[in-house]
Amino acid sequence: MTPRLLRLGIVGLGRAFTLMLPTFLSDPRIKLAGACDPRAEARRRFAADFSCPVHDSVEALAADPDVQAVYIASPHQFHAEHTRIAASHGKHVLVEKPMALSLGECDAMIDACRAAGVHLVIGHCHSFDTPYLETRRLIESGEYGAVKMIHALNYTDYLYRPRRPEELATEAGGGAVFSQAAHQVDIVRLLAGRRARSLRSALGNWDPARPTEGAYSALLWFDGGAYASLNYNGYGHFDSDEWMDWIGEMGAAKHPDDYGQARRKLATVSARQEAELKAAGAYGGKAYVAGPAGRGARAPDLAHQHFGSILVSCEGADLRPTSHGIHVYGDQARRFLPLRPPAAPRLEVIDELHDAVYLGKPCLHDGSWAKGTLEICLAMLASSRGGRDIGLVHQAGA
Amino acid sequence: MTPRLLRLGIVGLGRAFTLMLPTFLSDPRIKLAGACDPRAEARRRFAADFSCPVHDSVEALAADPDVQAVYIASPHQFHAEHTRIAASHGKHVLVEKPMALSLGECDAMIDACRAAGVHLVIGHCHSFDTPYLETRRLIESGEYGAVKMIHALNYTDYLYRPRRPEELATEAGGGAVFSQAAHQVDIVRLLAGRRARSLRSALGNWDPARPTEGAYSALLWFDGGAYASLNYNGYGHFDSDEWMDWIGEMGAAKHPDDYGQARRKLATVSARQEAELKAAGAYGGKAYVAGPAGRGARAPDLAHQHFGSILVSCEGADLRPTSHGIHVYGDQARRFLPLRPPAAPRLEVIDELHDAVYLGKPCLHDGSWAKGTLEICLAMLASSRGGRDIGLVHQAGA
Repeated sequence: MTPRLLRLGIVGLGRAFTLMLPTFLSDPRIKLAGACDPRAEARRRFAADFSCPVHDSVEALAADPDVQAVYIASPHQFHAEHTRIAASHGKHVLVEKPMALSLGECDAMIDACRAAGVHLVIGHCHSFDTPYLETRRLIESGEYGAVKMIHALNYTDYLYRPRRPEELATEAGGGAVFSQAAHQVDIVRLLAGRRARSLRSALGNWDPARPTEGAYSALLWFDGGAYASLNYNGYGHFDSDEWMDWIGEMGAAKHPDDYGQARRKLATVSARQEAELKAAGAYGGKAYVAGPAGRGARAPDLAHQHFGSILVSCEGADLRPTSHGIHVYGDQARRFLPLRPPAAPRLEVIDELHDAVYLGKPCLHDGSWAKGTLEICLAMLASSRGGRDIGLVHQAGA
Repeated sequence: MTPRLLRLGIVGLGRAFTLMLPTFLSDPRIKLAGACDPRAEARRRFAADFSCPVHDSVEALAADPDVQAVYIASPHQFHAEHTRIAASHGKHVLVEKPMALSLGECDAMIDACRAAGVHLVIGHCHSFDTPYLETRRLIESGEYGAVKMIHALNYTDYLYRPRRPEELATEAGGGAVFSQAAHQVDIVRLLAGRRARSLRSALGNWDPARPTEGAYSALLWFDGGAYASLNYNGYGHFDSDEWMDWIGEMGAAKHPDDYGQARRKLATVSARQEAELKAAGAYGGKAYVAGPAGRGARAPDLAHQHFGSILVSCEGADLRPTSHGIHVYGDQARRFLPLRPPAAPRLEVIDELHDAVYLGKPCLHDGSWAKGTLEICLAMLASSRGGRDIGLVHQAGA
């Protein structure tokens, strides 16, 4: 079947949007059809770049009959309300992770989209990355036996990238649990292939100047007895991309000697300047630079995106997805299954949205799946605060 | 002060002894003064190799007035009784890890040595390795602030090395928790520098042919709020020495293409043959080969021993000890502090025993310290079985 065009409206022209822009520009299935953002300079640039209408409210964008689907990349706390508006106008919804900040919001989003008969996809999230999807296929083949143990680790400079104040406040959806565990938990659930049933966690929050979670470790148990260890540290010291062939999260080669850039840059600015720095670097801002894939450009040097080291221990092999392929460490031999490099980043997200809208194919990353991931992130916060295991009861999507 | 000679008797000429032999032979402070073992061929070889008395009972060895200290390397379940015998004859005791199989045994060992006025050192254990001791010194310098998070990971072929049946039975002290966590927990406690207060764990036991723990993950909390994530997998697939510059646990260079050796070798033998294989490869056996440092030989090609990847996150830096030195990932720059290669493996153990006996220097790895490590290993078993956190109350050595 010939792919068909999907006319997409954008809610929020911030960092999430700029990370998705190379995908939208590279994928012939997507036509940018409109946008809204509170920042006039972002709206102006979008109108100029893509010759299409811009709006100062989600309502106005959602009402545009030329828009078929809406990509919601507004701050986390607005995801639920913006989804409700888009669905009420009959638009399909692609909403950034984390899906929302509470399970009640997730339910409202699922209900609104179901009532309107529109699809709801949560992404981008790194669990869309081809190396993880292909690892899942290997596991599902049964060749390596049951999954028994998963280990996930990512050490980054997350906490020291320029932030708005709300991004450093957990109660507003900031911090590593809402923003980063959302990726890691989703990947681990996808690879475990069973319902998670309980969690125990420890949280790290040790920089008084950035008082939110910058690190965590957690144990996650699944039906059937498999377990996972999830580990994240965003305090900007050791960089675990050293264990990922020096390919960064976005699939680009990294140079080890670029060590400490985020902290060094941040050390030169005040808290007020930090917000300005973030705004200037945002789409439409004075210092905005288009991503590596550029406008309409292909990205031949990009490998697959990733979210740190993942080791899946099956009965008969350990599987280790990387940006270039999958290492299979079997009982008596190891091999490497190379993956074709991506034509552009994150096309997997468009695959899922397109195939849901035009082929009626069930979404993997639908509302009920993503609600399960949010439940685990919320359980991470609750387990550490309460000093005990947290049972999980909303894992129906698994 | 001039080092003085320590006349050492050996209890048990099995694998632990052969791993310590290069140390004993390389260290001019040690004179081998006698041994006992139930295997006649091991006694014969020891007598021939070192021209000294051999015995068929611990009692007889411990009664020899020429023996000043005893190295107890008998199977785990005999450590307590053999320590009691050695102490009752006024001998200092160096006992292999794990110290014993129960806290009651630890208490009896501590009491017996205290009553006899002899020193009790538990080792070798990888927490003696110079890279960890030096990392501890860096932390104690205060330059990097408080320890906040530790991550430890080791993926090995532990479960597929030749084993006696009891080594595959948890209740007899077999399995990865008694045998391998004893190292990892000791290292993590040493680097945390605070008392551990509770633990939550998940255990992996998934090969019916080898029905003991082959893997675990655990969260460990310390006074002051620091936490550690401990992860071990001995099922012989991914080898984490890839992240340790391809230097193996014993400090020797490893070739990635030697993948799968332990499993391949084991696949060719029956369970009965496996015990015979282990016996043949043991000291005095037909297939015994002296370790890389050989008899009396130096080991110029050996780097420091290690127990997998360790990441210590302090407020101001991540510290990563390796076989060649310590990576310091600071706020704005990283550096590598190289360590002088070891003259021979495990001399740190002799340092501690010698300095206790002749200088009255307090032991780091004394009975009360090692009891704390055993408490954590037992808590790993109990937490997984009970599905809950286990409080720790015997961490006085920390």
